[in-house]
Amino acid sequence: MSRITLFTDSRVPCPQRLLLTIHELGLQINDIREVDISKFEHKRPEILELNPFGAVPFIRDETYDPPLMLTESRAIARYIAQAYGSSDVSAALLPDPTNVVAVAKFEEAASIELTSFDACANQLVFEELFKPSWFNGETDAEKCKLLREGLVRVVDLLDKRLTDQQFMAGGKLTVVDLFFVPYMHHLVSTVYPTLLDSRPHLSAWWERITSRESYKHLFGDSKKN
Amino acid sequence: MSRITLFTDSRVPCPQRLLLTIHELGLQINDIREVDISKFEHKRPEILELNPFGAVPFIRDETYDPPLMLTESRAIARYIAQAYGSSDVSAALLPDPTNVVAVAKFEEAASIELTSFDACANQLVFEELFKPSWFNGETDAEKCKLLREGLVRVVDLLDKRLTDQQFMAGGKLTVVDLFFVPYMHHLVSTVYPTLLDSRPHLSAWWERITSRESYKHLFGDSKKN
Repeated sequence: MSRITLFTDSRVPCPQRLLLTIHELGLQINDIREVDISKFEHKRPEILELNPFGAVPFIRDETYDPPLMLTESRAIARYIAQAYGSSDVSAALLPDPTNVVAVAKFEEAASIELTSFDACANQLVFEELFKPSWFNGETDAEKCKLLREGLVRVVDLLDKRLTDQQFMAGGKLTVVDLFFVPYMHHLVSTVYPTLLDSRPHLSAWWERITSRESYKHLFGDSKKN
Repeated sequence: MSRITLFTDSRVPCPQRLLLTIHELGLQINDIREVDISKFEHKRPEILELNPFGAVPFIRDETYDPPLMLTESRAIARYIAQAYGSSDVSAALLPDPTNVVAVAKFEEAASIELTSFDACANQLVFEELFKPSWFNGETDAEKCKLLREGLVRVVDLLDKRLTDQQFMAGGKLTVVDLFFVPYMHHLVSTVYPTLLDSRPHLSAWWERITSRESYKHLFGDSKKN
């Protein structure tokens, strides 16, 4: 049992990135506080006092004195993988820290996820899914056209990258694979169902991801949630 | 002398992020190949063969067999800091890898730079500086208004974050501070000269950064290049 309190909105992609990591690690978090971002609860004074950035997820880990407060889904995922993950390097969700090349390729993959994939996928899913359904907003069609073009370039490159490696950072699953999952789920399930067609290596990676218990636990077994 | 070949365009922010790190480390790179992105040289077949993402900077390090090819400015900066940086933890540009909390706060800062600061600063500097001056494009005033509002929120939070720590990831300079520098330079020098006004902690951080040899070497001593 960890001494972590998790502040989250389990329905949205950034917290889900962290939830996948928690599930992969088998980490027990009993104190989970749901913060409803559709009601702007993340902007309430008591939340802003804990996380001035006014975003979820964030954690408080009382293992330390003073407790460690940590924001940013990817940083939290890395932290819990290091602090609570397997000491067996092959099973860990992080690269072997003593292998400089493995760490470098991991950081390259982590940067690609953020600067290339998320830069398109995040905005496209927002425009076409969350903006109309959650915020009563109008999808910007011209913007979506450009985002789709950018996304196609990115997935072509990811498909190429996966030609001779099973996972985004190399031969084993790392947190970087999990960073891709929530937006990829929404793209493949609803926003852009043909995205993986004719991209065999990326499709095979997605099969590997969606057959994992962490994915099934979060999104169900249908891949169509 | 390293066995690194650096492919770069030394005039633009992402490569400059890496150049600052190289200078801070005192790393000698003799083989520097300039790739003129204003002439789209980064999209030429011989460059795409080396880096399918068609971007600079990237490196080839012949210390390894096969040579290590690495893209993404932030990943390369982390790599050279680990592979060629000081073994003295207090002087290194990375956190002490055995200090889980220090690593966590470093990763939080690294994520904030990308998801909050770069998300506004990168686009704003492009719209107001590079788009009109390099690409003969027209600045999108409405977009810039929103980006400026977002940027103000970010710098307010960074100012607060720096209240009780000297650098972005804690008490010492790390690569994350350097990640902020190129876009901050363009904001403060030309695009948004009043950005640091009434933000004393962020201003003090910027004084610390701009008084360093790495900054002076790259941008000159006037802070107004």
